[in-house]
Amino acid sequence: MASEFRIVRRVEFAETDAAGIMHFSNYFRFMEAAEHAFFRSLGLTIHPHAAPGAVGWPRVQASCEYRRPLRFEDEVEIHLRVAERREKVLVYDFVFRRLSGGAEEVAQGRFTVACVRRDGAGNMKAVPIPAEIAVLIEPVRGGAAVDGPP
Amino acid sequence: MASEFRIVRRVEFAETDAAGIMHFSNYFRFMEAAEHAFFRSLGLTIHPHAAPGAVGWPRVQASCEYRRPLRFEDEVEIHLRVAERREKVLVYDFVFRRLSGGAEEVAQGRFTVACVRRDGAGNMKAVPIPAEIAVLIEPVRGGAAVDGPP
Amino acid sequence: MASEFRIVRRVEFAETDAAGIMHFSNYFRFMEAAEHAFFRSLGLTIHPHAAPGAVGWPRVQASCEYRRPLRFEDEVEIHLRVAERREKVLVYDFVFRRLSGGAEEVAQGRFTVACVRRDGAGNMKAVPIPAEIAVLIEPVRGGAAVDGPP
Amino acid sequence: MASEFRIVRRVEFAETDAAGIMHFSNYFRFMEAAEHAFFRSLGLTIHPHAAPGAVGWPRVQASCEYRRPLRFEDEVEIHLRVAERREKVLVYDFVFRRLSGGAEEVAQGRFTVACVRRDGAGNMKAVPIPAEIAVLIEPVRGGAAVDGPP
Repeated sequence: MASEFRIVRRVEFAETDAAGIMHFSNYFRFMEAAEHAFFRSLGLTIHPHAAPGAVGWPRVQASCEYRRPLRFEDEVEIHLRVAERREKVLVYDFVFRRLSGGAEEVAQGRFTVACVRRDGAGNMKAVPIPAEIAVLIEPVRGGAAVDGPP
Repeated sequence: MASEFRIVRRVEFAETDAAGIMHFSNYFRFMEAAEHAFFRSLGLTIHPHAAPGAVGWPRVQASCEYRRPLRFEDEVEIHLRVAERREKVLVYDFVFRRLSGGAEEVAQGRFTVACVRRDGAGNMKAVPIPAEIAVLIEPVRGGAAVDGPP
Repeated sequence: MASEFRIVRRVEFAETDAAGIMHFSNYFRFMEAAEHAFFRSLGLTIHPHAAPGAVGWPRVQASCEYRRPLRFEDEVEIHLRVAERREKVLVYDFVFRRLSGGAEEVAQGRFTVACVRRDGAGNMKAVPIPAEIAVLIEPVRGGAAVDGPP
Repeated sequence: MASEFRIVRRVEFAETDAAGIMHFSNYFRFMEAAEHAFFRSLGLTIHPHAAPGAVGWPRVQASCEYRRPLRFEDEVEIHLRVAERREKVLVYDFVFRRLSGGAEEVAQGRFTVACVRRDGAGNMKAVPIPAEIAVLIEPVRGGAAVDGPP
């Protein structure tokens, strides 16, 4: 069972803005990249066009706190931790640490994602996390795996 | 004095993802677009290369709650409200309402932005909101304009 | 029958980069926005999840020449012209004119888009432009509507 | 002296669109990522906030031809080759090869970038490629290093 995962990214030019720093919206893309790499590390994929009946993982909530800026070509580690696993929901915490120029925490974020399945009309409906996925993912010590309804 | 502002956007194809809906990171870009349009409506600009001494407005915190998806070509109103005005900080609340296919609230968000000035080394330092800006911006009724330190 | 269309955009902060100008990749998004607005102006939509049998319009080729930079909050007109209409292909030319600070041509671009339909396996195959669409779109004088194969 | 460089990317979810494939504008971001990694491999940086007098490399022209789509989580190699080195200009050719699901060429692109320096007013002016950079970069055999004016 896995509770955490780390990826390293280098800030690209297209991710900066005219203030000379990484645009704040791109932290959310970095967090999602870490989440998807975490799934791949478990032999899973978050694939929207997967087989019928496959579950998807839309965001219910996303947030980020910015401490220090990131600049072009900075290397940054995104450290994902599973904060909670509820019946139909996963909560991930993220810490961003700049690796270039002295390791330093630069931001923190959080995602709440729902496990959903599309009905016949294509609408998404929250469903329990399939057992074969839930068995692979464990909240970090101090986090909570709740068996009851979300 | 202004406390709120509304813009309308149409979801573009480049803003969608393979799940067929607007990518969650783009809500943050829509909120920022509303914030900048609000500033323009006051005769102000949030300009990173403005005259020396001009203030900037980096995000300290950004969050969004997603209720329902937005799809390609949906029209959505982003309704900005000034929730708080502290000495060095503004807090904005946002409500997203889809206008096409029956008006419906689809998301809510929040920004906490700091008023900063760059020092000689280019580092950003929080400073009091200049009086000529503060006088134009008033929290919505029920929000708070706090005169003390942030 | 329509041969051209114009939209006006204001450069957003998220579209700039650390060189203080609009990132070159975003010109392609502006051109696509003009193309899709052109289709809407004809009562059409370029919708990927439309009814079975609906055609799509993937890019076969895209190019842009950059003359002068665009900066945050610049207003720019994107002027689309239909350069060619072949059996299975449309060619659009685009001219970017900055409206703020003195009208000036800042860039030119071109798209070649194919009319495709997805087969049962989801693969895209070029097909003749449906007559009800072809009848609405006419190349600009000096352009070419070719009846033969593309 | 170097004439080519390769990077490998995995298509991220934020880079896809509602057609289920990588948005065409993102190929340009992948090409720029390869260009910047090529510069880093030479001990150089394309840095917009570098020391006074540092040169920049804005695009004069960018184009891409799309043969086959890329999908979420596809791995793709971007193969950069220096096609030309003129006095003030570099021309790069790019080939995209999908590595997952059978290696296959999926796209080709080209950048023409100018070597520029900013004058006192911040305007960019084309200048000869500095000798210490030109000495590191050689067009591929069959390409051309032209000593005369661009």
